[in-house]
Amino acid sequence: MSKNKVNTKVLSGFVELLPEQQKFFNYIKDEVRASYEKFGYFSIDTPTIERSEVLFAKAGGETEKQIYRFTKGDNDLSLRFDLTIPFARYVADHYNDLVFPFKRYQIGKVYRGERAQKGRYREFYQADIDIVAENNLSIMYDVDIISTIFSTINNFHFLFVLGLGFATIKISNRKIWEGFFEEFGITGDKKASIMGIIDKKAKMTAEDFNTELSEVVGDEKITSLILKLFEVEYMGKIGISIPDKYHADFTFINKNEKMKEGISELETVISTLKAGYPDSADTFTLDLSIVRGLDYYTGTVFETYLDDYPDFGSIASGGRYENLCDNYTDKKICGVGGSIGLSRLFIPLIESMKIKEDIFLNVLILPQNEACYKKAFVTELNLLSFFKEEQIIRNISAIYEDKKFKKLMEYANKLQTLLVIIIGDDELANNTLTLKNMISGEQSTQSLEATKEILKNTLKK
Amino acid sequence: MSKNKVNTKVLSGFVELLPEQQKFFNYIKDEVRASYEKFGYFSIDTPTIERSEVLFAKAGGETEKQIYRFTKGDNDLSLRFDLTIPFARYVADHYNDLVFPFKRYQIGKVYRGERAQKGRYREFYQADIDIVAENNLSIMYDVDIISTIFSTINNFHFLFVLGLGFATIKISNRKIWEGFFEEFGITGDKKASIMGIIDKKAKMTAEDFNTELSEVVGDEKITSLILKLFEVEYMGKIGISIPDKYHADFTFINKNEKMKEGISELETVISTLKAGYPDSADTFTLDLSIVRGLDYYTGTVFETYLDDYPDFGSIASGGRYENLCDNYTDKKICGVGGSIGLSRLFIPLIESMKIKEDIFLNVLILPQNEACYKKAFVTELNLLSFFKEEQIIRNISAIYEDKKFKKLMEYANKLQTLLVIIIGDDELANNTLTLKNMISGEQSTQSLEATKEILKNTLKK
Repeated sequence: MSKNKVNTKVLSGFVELLPEQQKFFNYIKDEVRASYEKFGYFSIDTPTIERSEVLFAKAGGETEKQIYRFTKGDNDLSLRFDLTIPFARYVADHYNDLVFPFKRYQIGKVYRGERAQKGRYREFYQADIDIVAENNLSIMYDVDIISTIFSTINNFHFLFVLGLGFATIKISNRKIWEGFFEEFGITGDKKASIMGIIDKKAKMTAEDFNTELSEVVGDEKITSLILKLFEVEYMGKIGISIPDKYHADFTFINKNEKMKEGISELETVISTLKAGYPDSADTFTLDLSIVRGLDYYTGTVFETYLDDYPDFGSIASGGRYENLCDNYTDKKICGVGGSIGLSRLFIPLIESMKIKEDIFLNVLILPQNEACYKKAFVTELNLLSFFKEEQIIRNISAIYEDKKFKKLMEYANKLQTLLVIIIGDDELANNTLTLKNMISGEQSTQSLEATKEILKNTLKK
Repeated sequence: MSKNKVNTKVLSGFVELLPEQQKFFNYIKDEVRASYEKFGYFSIDTPTIERSEVLFAKAGGETEKQIYRFTKGDNDLSLRFDLTIPFARYVADHYNDLVFPFKRYQIGKVYRGERAQKGRYREFYQADIDIVAENNLSIMYDVDIISTIFSTINNFHFLFVLGLGFATIKISNRKIWEGFFEEFGITGDKKASIMGIIDKKAKMTAEDFNTELSEVVGDEKITSLILKLFEVEYMGKIGISIPDKYHADFTFINKNEKMKEGISELETVISTLKAGYPDSADTFTLDLSIVRGLDYYTGTVFETYLDDYPDFGSIASGGRYENLCDNYTDKKICGVGGSIGLSRLFIPLIESMKIKEDIFLNVLILPQNEACYKKAFVTELNLLSFFKEEQIIRNISAIYEDKKFKKLMEYANKLQTLLVIIIGDDELANNTLTLKNMISGEQSTQSLEATKEILKNTLKK
């Protein structure tokens, strides 16, 4: 780059892909969308810019610092940092026009001015689903969210098997911990600190975790009970069970309504998912160390990890919330949602893959000189109409370059073209077209009508 | 809204749609994308945020004031106000990885902090196509751009006929005016002012236009020549012709290379389009008053107007540029592009329409009580697998509400459901499903397998 030129490199933490990579990312995004729609979620598209007060009403400490905030005229504005807060505002604002329970999806970019580091983006796609209703929402909707997320990710099974291995969805319920903390009178900052440590458990060694936990708890008996809770497993027909050897320690559960409720909900969620996906029953596991950082979750919480790359962090997560719309409306809206981190999951994969797009351009028309340009254009439109009639979804392009035939064929090769239509002086004089299959090498000259037949046989699946 | 609540109304100049409206807008966006892809354009997706220097290198006076600009850390950042400048930067940055001529499309939101007024948005979707190459690009690519824009808009023919009437694409070529101004030594601010008035011609009365033009030109002979140029028409086989009575006034054209080139290019563009779309030949008209406000156009320019609503302004426009990448690379990149103002065109239509979505939800499963929830969930997954096998693209949702049957059916009606599957105690005991067609009223109880057959016959197109 010479001096006086503006820096054209994409900003640090931002992503842009080359066309063949973009095509692959679009394919993934389209499949996610189709999957969400299949499960009966409706699309909404909120503005990227929100009033700052809307976002700051819900953003926590770290997130607040990451918000892109600015003024325009008298307006204090910010870029959304997730799709959940804007959705909460949307529900409050359009309450009277929506049918509840309302199932919506939104796939869009969100913005976080994080410190630049590997795998962290400042602009990235989230693909969210949520179900909300007033006052009550069956625990079955928690099942619906996790089921939709699982089924959607499972569409990319081929990718997981190729490059990412398998994934496990770890499910918990915050009511169990809420009940536990109530039982021992742990509240406020102390509760938050303990939850914070539990949230980091997967990233720490057992030793570091135990030390830090017991420091913060400051009570040996309670620390020991917490550690024992992590051994709780989902036991098939018995449901969730405390290991026999600890039964005496946990008799208080029978009198703790919140813990009982959490356990019962968690049992329903896991058992129903296992029943719905018998071939993938092992994907759904109970893990009480899943608590999720965000304050607004109140029941079911889940995170999804790649079995072979636990350090990659959660690729899809969500949970149940009761008070998300509190700042926006007097109505008591409860909901459950989930989100797939599209960019975080797929961009590194796409950037590292040598993407081999089999066919990039289906038909390329190559007029040999300027006299043939108009015929090339009319032929292109003619074939596109024919494709429409025959419901053949394929692309056609023409190249108008006054270059040697060899150069034109090089262009066709670079764009991985399947079929080339050559129009030279002979074709013009005889009103014919020469068709060449770039894979088989077959070449033939015939009328437009005969060419259409060959195209139909080659391109129609 | 009670006090202490945050303002949830969408910001002035911003748009958000209700789910049934959003579905319709998505349909339009998908069709535009499919059309662009059909013509062999490749997708790219640049960040919404750019370095301010990238945008300000190209933004003009009015546009500059509209830019959303802010700092984050040490970075001076701005939101893109169009998709063309980011594309120019993209081409400069990824030059070595692209195949030229490079045809790309991008559909995305852009941001302009305009004064709020009817039909003007601060966040809106543009749907752009561009073709770029180094040094040379055949005039046929100008044809390709206008053809793609026309064909894409024409997909929405039903909308135009219903609500918007027909559209006309007005085409001109800036070289004609450049040559004309050269001929009379008109340069700099004066040239810009004259172009500015010509750009506003369609919005002014003939009288006001003539007065203002002659004031700025300050020369009666030149003013009169300009007015005569507006009478130039495309005359079928003769091509572009100066009316006979003015021939003597325009003899200088034969020696003015730039004017001759502009006329020849314009002739090629219009005649080829008319040849390609014989049934819509009248759509493509010559109009030398089309000059387009933006500085970067150098040849072909076009705008699209609704015949019945000329005041609505241009719904799709574009043109040829030679120097767009100048600030970003030493390579001489030339290009031609076009853009459809998706939000501007369709949002007012969608907001004013009473959208009647025939079928919003295809299949809704209604378990009658909690005991039936698990069977409902498993049935949903089972049917989705069956749809996948049979390539039936339909949605299914289940509702888990402990309410009276009448209430549940009301929900099904509100979501305009086609088929309802009822699961109550009888169905649970007998392992059957009750299927009700909400349109015909038909209802029957049978096994899962038999239900699948009925669904297949009803839903498969």
